Amino acid sequence: MAPAAFADEEMKLSSQVEQGRDEPLTKSKVTVVGSGNWGSVASKLIASNTLKLPSFHDEVRMWVFEETLPTGEKLSDVINKTNENVKYLPGVKLGKNVTADSDLEHAVQDANMLVFVTPHQFVEGICKRLMGKIKGDVEAISLIKGMEVKTEGPCMISSLITEMLGINCCVLMGANIANEIAAEKFSEATVGFRENKEVAEKWVRLFRTPYFLVSAVQDVEGVELCGTLKNVVAIGAGLVDGLDMGSNTKAAIMRIGLKEMRALSKLMFPSVKDSTFFESCGVADLITTCLGGRNRKVAEAYARNGGKRSFDELEAEMLQGQKLQGVSTAKELYEVMRSKGWTDLFPLFTTVYEISIGLLPPSAIVEYKEDVPKFYSVEDSAIYH
Amino acid sequence: MAPAAFADEEMKLSSQVEQGRDEPLTKSKVTVVGSGNWGSVASKLIASNTLKLPSFHDEVRMWVFEETLPTGEKLSDVINKTNENVKYLPGVKLGKNVTADSDLEHAVQDANMLVFVTPHQFVEGICKRLMGKIKGDVEAISLIKGMEVKTEGPCMISSLITEMLGINCCVLMGANIANEIAAEKFSEATVGFRENKEVAEKWVRLFRTPYFLVSAVQDVEGVELCGTLKNVVAIGAGLVDGLDMGSNTKAAIMRIGLKEMRALSKLMFPSVKDSTFFESCGVADLITTCLGGRNRKVAEAYARNGGKRSFDELEAEMLQGQKLQGVSTAKELYEVMRSKGWTDLFPLFTTVYEISIGLLPPSAIVEYKEDVPKFYSVEDSAIYH
Repeated sequence: MAPAAFADEEMKLSSQVEQGRDEPLTKSKVTVVGSGNWGSVASKLIASNTLKLPSFHDEVRMWVFEETLPTGEKLSDVINKTNENVKYLPGVKLGKNVTADSDLEHAVQDANMLVFVTPHQFVEGICKRLMGKIKGDVEAISLIKGMEVKTEGPCMISSLITEMLGINCCVLMGANIANEIAAEKFSEATVGFRENKEVAEKWVRLFRTPYFLVSAVQDVEGVELCGTLKNVVAIGAGLVDGLDMGSNTKAAIMRIGLKEMRALSKLMFPSVKDSTFFESCGVADLITTCLGGRNRKVAEAYARNGGKRSFDELEAEMLQGQKLQGVSTAKELYEVMRSKGWTDLFPLFTTVYEISIGLLPPSAIVEYKEDVPKFYSVEDSAIYH
Repeated sequence: MAPAAFADEEMKLSSQVEQGRDEPLTKSKVTVVGSGNWGSVASKLIASNTLKLPSFHDEVRMWVFEETLPTGEKLSDVINKTNENVKYLPGVKLGKNVTADSDLEHAVQDANMLVFVTPHQFVEGICKRLMGKIKGDVEAISLIKGMEVKTEGPCMISSLITEMLGINCCVLMGANIANEIAAEKFSEATVGFRENKEVAEKWVRLFRTPYFLVSAVQDVEGVELCGTLKNVVAIGAGLVDGLDMGSNTKAAIMRIGLKEMRALSKLMFPSVKDSTFFESCGVADLITTCLGGRNRKVAEAYARNGGKRSFDELEAEMLQGQKLQGVSTAKELYEVMRSKGWTDLFPLFTTVYEISIGLLPPSAIVEYKEDVPKFYSVEDSAIYH
């Protein structure tokens, strides 16, 4: 018997697809564009699979933005000599079949599977350099969280890659603290794909391991928006921590945040599915980000200081040059919501923004007027669905 | 403009319904059946609203299971004298309009709204005593978490009340640590109703305050099952804590748990809605329970002891007589799943049970064979919905 609750939403991937099959005529060649902390872990995951699966070339090429180490050596040389990214993932062997390459065009020239995993502000420049330089049958996937939200709508990284390079682009997001995955601790991720399910299955096979479970959902925008919007919710969760409000309150803010993430994503892209928010990219990444994470941490400090020290000041002091994405995303979202007349529909996102600029005190995160029943709802799908 | 993302699932409750209306001819009279920690907090919430809202009698009667305090005084007398439940909610004023009554039949005789909030093992006995003793136009709500799951299916408390007393019964569940709500910290809850939306709205008005936001969903079983099944997931989350697996892993186990809660609830009651799991009773209560809570705590200790000390032993030592619902629910669930042939569909619930009886080591919570792709799925609603 195939129970309805599962049959309507899932199709089991046969893990036998790869096995027992004849050697494929053309093997896919993978290049990872990026070699920071997450890029190095992604290379390690992929390299363990290309060795096992006949449909992939063993070698994984990893483009390294070249740096000179304090020893005077080049980072790419050291990676190739030690099989470790000594700067961004020290102590972890990447796999002998990972080759660091500091020449971007050379790194991608034979690849037909490109994994983008750079800081998001570099994507546009990298794509410019790659225009006309890649093969015709290339598939891409973006692991980059934190695309920009502009007034005319969000600028999705996957769309940017598709538009600039003329290739299909999936995304992979989830509750993925890179160092924990490098230590092979059990974890999950979600692949978002647009149309081609076979390609999504191929990405799943390339990434999944017994300790890294990967599911695919046909919802690129939903998966990608989860990765950005959760940072705004994490600001709210951090404020609650700083106010010492307890776990009911924190859970409530996280839940309302998840609801606003879902509603806003669906307003922006009507194709976004509710079920995506039950995947690793949704509820699980939100949990990880609201329990740890730098957005939560700085927001807690903001509340503990009674809002008297600005986010900019705390960010500079606490993050050693890393940027606080939640605050800038909250601002960008607010501009979108204001231009569309949606601010009343998203009291949490709006309140986080207003607190972040000092317009409201941190305690406003849990203050909503009783006569504005923003959250009081009777859901009745019999009538409204 | 009414954005589609909200309009399809919500109807704003007008909080003006009560205001500006003529004094109703018949005022509803509320009795709270139970006076433990949560029952006392519920009485406080309700009493603050009956004073304000013209459609309710001011007085809230609270049935007290009589106890003699160390001072020799009766608990009900002390509550009526001090306006505090000195045993179960010390230091919090319940409201002058709360009257403790140790005579069950007397406490309910004029009531037309009954709030059940006792330990779940007492409900059947209480209902037996109330049969034939209550008015005909009575509505009930159950705040009782932890109904029993029997082989023939779950024994829902709301159904038990309906069947034994012949009255409609809603439920109220959520991320509700009673002492935090008593301290008026921001929190949420979900009312589950069967058919009558007006009744659900009345319960929402009776409970909600500016710091306690209540939503209603037409899904009694979904809301009630959330309250039970989350305890099994919390055992899994506690094991992860005890194994020092980190936050990716914990978030993954919580997410898989939420997914199994949803799938099992829908198998048991096809009317259960996905959206219920986004409400406070679902994701928020799960978060609270997996962050704090006794199931999590004892499971953490179980893993730290490498499974060498039984759950029974740890429970006796750590909980001072309180029961570990997650372990007994896992056992009951396992019996249901085995009798229905569902165990393969619920690897997390099954694994928690097998760990709890010592059949598997605690580390099994994160060990799933790669060639049994239980969690590898491609969701494709275009095909399967």
